[in-house]
Amino acid sequence: MRIGIVCPVWFPVPPEAYGGTERVVALLADGLVDSGHEVTLFASGDSQSRARLESAFHTAPSEWIGHTYWEMQHALLAFGRSRDFDVLHDHTGMLGLAFGGLVETPFCHTVHGPLDGQPGRLYEQILELASNAKLISISMNQRKPKPHLPWVANCPNALDLSMFPFRRKAGGEYLVFLGRMSPDKGAHRALAVALETGLPLKIAAKCREPLEIRYFDEFIRPHLGGSIEYVGEVGHADKVELLMGARALISPIDWEEPFGLMMIEAMACGTPVISTRRGAVSEIVEHGKTGVVVDNYRDMEEPSVLELADSLDPVVIREHVEANFSPEIMVANYVAAYEATIDASG
Amino acid sequence: MRIGIVCPVWFPVPPEAYGGTERVVALLADGLVDSGHEVTLFASGDSQSRARLESAFHTAPSEWIGHTYWEMQHALLAFGRSRDFDVLHDHTGMLGLAFGGLVETPFCHTVHGPLDGQPGRLYEQILELASNAKLISISMNQRKPKPHLPWVANCPNALDLSMFPFRRKAGGEYLVFLGRMSPDKGAHRALAVALETGLPLKIAAKCREPLEIRYFDEFIRPHLGGSIEYVGEVGHADKVELLMGARALISPIDWEEPFGLMMIEAMACGTPVISTRRGAVSEIVEHGKTGVVVDNYRDMEEPSVLELADSLDPVVIREHVEANFSPEIMVANYVAAYEATIDASG
Repeated sequence: MRIGIVCPVWFPVPPEAYGGTERVVALLADGLVDSGHEVTLFASGDSQSRARLESAFHTAPSEWIGHTYWEMQHALLAFGRSRDFDVLHDHTGMLGLAFGGLVETPFCHTVHGPLDGQPGRLYEQILELASNAKLISISMNQRKPKPHLPWVANCPNALDLSMFPFRRKAGGEYLVFLGRMSPDKGAHRALAVALETGLPLKIAAKCREPLEIRYFDEFIRPHLGGSIEYVGEVGHADKVELLMGARALISPIDWEEPFGLMMIEAMACGTPVISTRRGAVSEIVEHGKTGVVVDNYRDMEEPSVLELADSLDPVVIREHVEANFSPEIMVANYVAAYEATIDASG
Repeated sequence: MRIGIVCPVWFPVPPEAYGGTERVVALLADGLVDSGHEVTLFASGDSQSRARLESAFHTAPSEWIGHTYWEMQHALLAFGRSRDFDVLHDHTGMLGLAFGGLVETPFCHTVHGPLDGQPGRLYEQILELASNAKLISISMNQRKPKPHLPWVANCPNALDLSMFPFRRKAGGEYLVFLGRMSPDKGAHRALAVALETGLPLKIAAKCREPLEIRYFDEFIRPHLGGSIEYVGEVGHADKVELLMGARALISPIDWEEPFGLMMIEAMACGTPVISTRRGAVSEIVEHGKTGVVVDNYRDMEEPSVLELADSLDPVVIREHVEANFSPEIMVANYVAAYEATIDASG
């Protein structure tokens, strides 16, 4: 199949640090090439891919993130070549989705964000105009606010398992929190649980934007020291080290997280996940097998929760990721999604 | 006719200070209503219009200027209602032009910027995708880099002449410069001419963006004092006062200015224009009748230039604007453009 993949343009693919979408797109493009498809990846020139790379910019214009003029140049390069492809697959967001309505090539778009509130309404409005576009979800829960949109497939995210060696460290005592400094993700709730139970906590999180820094200063910084440690935004190697040595990943999210890459990263290391039952959690973590899923984050303080997490078999946890979130499965899911898109457009 | 007009969303319509596009759109919408058309104006909620106002935002999101997410919400409101109109007329820029390709309603777009360089290439690429869109120029010169685009009409900008009382002040000695602090517009060239000839100069210009401030600090500020005065960014009343009292408007532009609203503003006050022959100048200023047009800004230092400017009849200058740049003419031009758009789409 001749496949054109349009990535967000703001960061290189794969990204150097935080950036779940870019990491998944990198894995998908490489995997499709390995399966014998002819893949063109539209991304900034500082990206690395086994696909043919086409770039509107030599380096990712990160400093212009969100600006129409820059996104437009990237989108025009990709959508202007739509006739070269059997299917065009967009990841950029609303602009790419709208541009999908301008091409005759079968077109699908992966929704990477949540669809509740204003984004969901905007998606609905764009799809009224771009009525040929097909949508791909990354979890079934993500579809809940808008079940009537033109969904064509569900393609959960995946991990490059070769980058997550299964080498569990014995005797890990600390909980680890991984994500962004945002109330949604809940570093402050992880902190409350750690303070209440006396368990050590290591917080690894992106903290760059003004709102993230304000949240950190108000809710996290005052409690640092002693058994609560902030380790900053971690690169891949440090992240794997952190996860391999942790007693559990603590994920007290309070939003409709559409997927939750950090959960499969932890499980790939054999580390159980303790999470609230929000977003796609129930599709990712198997309660009593790969982690503990609770209704309220306060429940995480119950001794039975940690006991259950401690009792889980790391080998089983790892195998759950291999069986459900491998690149091979994601690539096969996407190939089926492309075929469905082409069928629906024919 | 049922007409939908989509304005840029970043400033209210009309704008409080600088903002040629928003001022022209305000005049056009009111004029179309006065001619008996059913007009809906899509602009921020703090706008004023005799047209029916539809707003995605209560106040103009100026602090987010250029961001896709905000522009998208505004565009979706307008283009989502395209079926309510006989013609949809966009002024927003590249995003609006692309959205024009998503609707079946006859669609035209006024180009407000220049088409040389990268913007011209992007327009071309968008029109390959939005192939139903028709373009309107604001001067014939503006089309020169891209004559093959789907032009449907030329509609020069206009002034609300009731806001420019023709009350010429006798004995004005100073030259006036009006515009932005940008090398293109040439405040520094106006300054060089003033210093060389010893004529007093008043500079009224927008100076808000970092680049404008840097240019001002480097090229203008060191020469202030004595006969060179910077009066800041002026509101309407101050602008009219400045123009009424000036000996001439000095406009040493060095770019393909697509129109040049400040020139018709000066002429409406009976003030002659001294300009370089760039952009649309030859379509606006009649050499030897309403101003003096020179090849090189250095020629402005010749005594014969000011002599010719002094000899021009303010009544004739004013009449030139009334005969060519009145709202009635602009409205009639646009109505013809809409009819041509509808014919071409049928």
